[in-house]
Amino acid sequence: MYNYPKSLEALINSFSLLPGVGKKTAERFAFSVLNQFSTSEVEEFIYNLDALKNLHQCPNCGCLTDDDLCPICKDPNRNKRLVMVVEQVKDVFVLEKLNEYQGIYHVLNGAIEFSKGINISDLNIDSLLEKAKNKEVDEIILATNATLEGETTAKYLKELLNDYPEVKVSRIAYGLPVGSDLAYADQMTLLKALEGRRNY
Amino acid sequence: MYNYPKSLEALINSFSLLPGVGKKTAERFAFSVLNQFSTSEVEEFIYNLDALKNLHQCPNCGCLTDDDLCPICKDPNRNKRLVMVVEQVKDVFVLEKLNEYQGIYHVLNGAIEFSKGINISDLNIDSLLEKAKNKEVDEIILATNATLEGETTAKYLKELLNDYPEVKVSRIAYGLPVGSDLAYADQMTLLKALEGRRNY
Repeated sequence: MYNYPKSLEALINSFSLLPGVGKKTAERFAFSVLNQFSTSEVEEFIYNLDALKNLHQCPNCGCLTDDDLCPICKDPNRNKRLVMVVEQVKDVFVLEKLNEYQGIYHVLNGAIEFSKGINISDLNIDSLLEKAKNKEVDEIILATNATLEGETTAKYLKELLNDYPEVKVSRIAYGLPVGSDLAYADQMTLLKALEGRRNY
Repeated sequence: MYNYPKSLEALINSFSLLPGVGKKTAERFAFSVLNQFSTSEVEEFIYNLDALKNLHQCPNCGCLTDDDLCPICKDPNRNKRLVMVVEQVKDVFVLEKLNEYQGIYHVLNGAIEFSKGINISDLNIDSLLEKAKNKEVDEIILATNATLEGETTAKYLKELLNDYPEVKVSRIAYGLPVGSDLAYADQMTLLKALEGRRNY
């Protein structure tokens, strides 16, 4: 019994490190690179993987950039006194797609997860507290996920920010997702939607 | 609205060239390379993609190899007078997994597909006919797919091989797949299974 040539087997192994990619899919990917990709497409693929090493987090907000500061922090039209706190870099791009928010971001690089030993001290919060201390911000919007971890992180941050009462701290709203059916909502969401009701 | 940094966007584009990978999955892959892959894993990924250029088809059988001949053609224990004809390189590895076949292979690099303009002359058949002509083979097993294209290709090959009556030409069997239910088999498969019935 003979197996794939070593170089093909190695590429299959690399592909199977990707999330949700098993052996079969990795084989399919490797064969598609071998058969369907042009030489220039493979070269670009290699170049793009290699170029990732130039990506780093913006020292001001923690967002991804290949420059000294990220374009959001550089933009003179962005309100630097309004900071939205998110868990992951990816969240920034999701929010940017709304084309609505005009402040800047602050990426925590995770959320408190005691079961995994991730504590508040493991998160990127120092520069945020520094900004609050130096009165560089008017409002901090806590936009961590609506999960146990995200909620815990938001609570901890709120407590830490209590030292700077001149900074307004807000939390994004809980409630029914738009287009959803009341009958199918889970109890926790319904409770939070009732709690967060507004004058109409 | 700001989008991903250019280098990340480029990597997402490379990933979305893979079969069955849309924008969302490509984003997930790119972020996993960025966040979960170690530096050495990224380097290996790059190396493995680059090493593909050393892979080529074995001049004897058309199978993939990074050597002069493929290991199957090099193996002195393989019966060189028994040749199994398959459509794709991948089929060789599927058959090798059975650990049963002891002959060598011949990869056609496709099948006749008139709708796509793929003719018998576009397939790798010259060296196979050469072998038949020079009386280097005893039996040729036609193991093209059980599809319209595979069947057409097998028919054409059979006709070409009629010029060499000393070569036995066989075709792999049609029938019910093992473990399948008669009631759910399609009519074509049932007909072929009846046609191919054997003494029991």
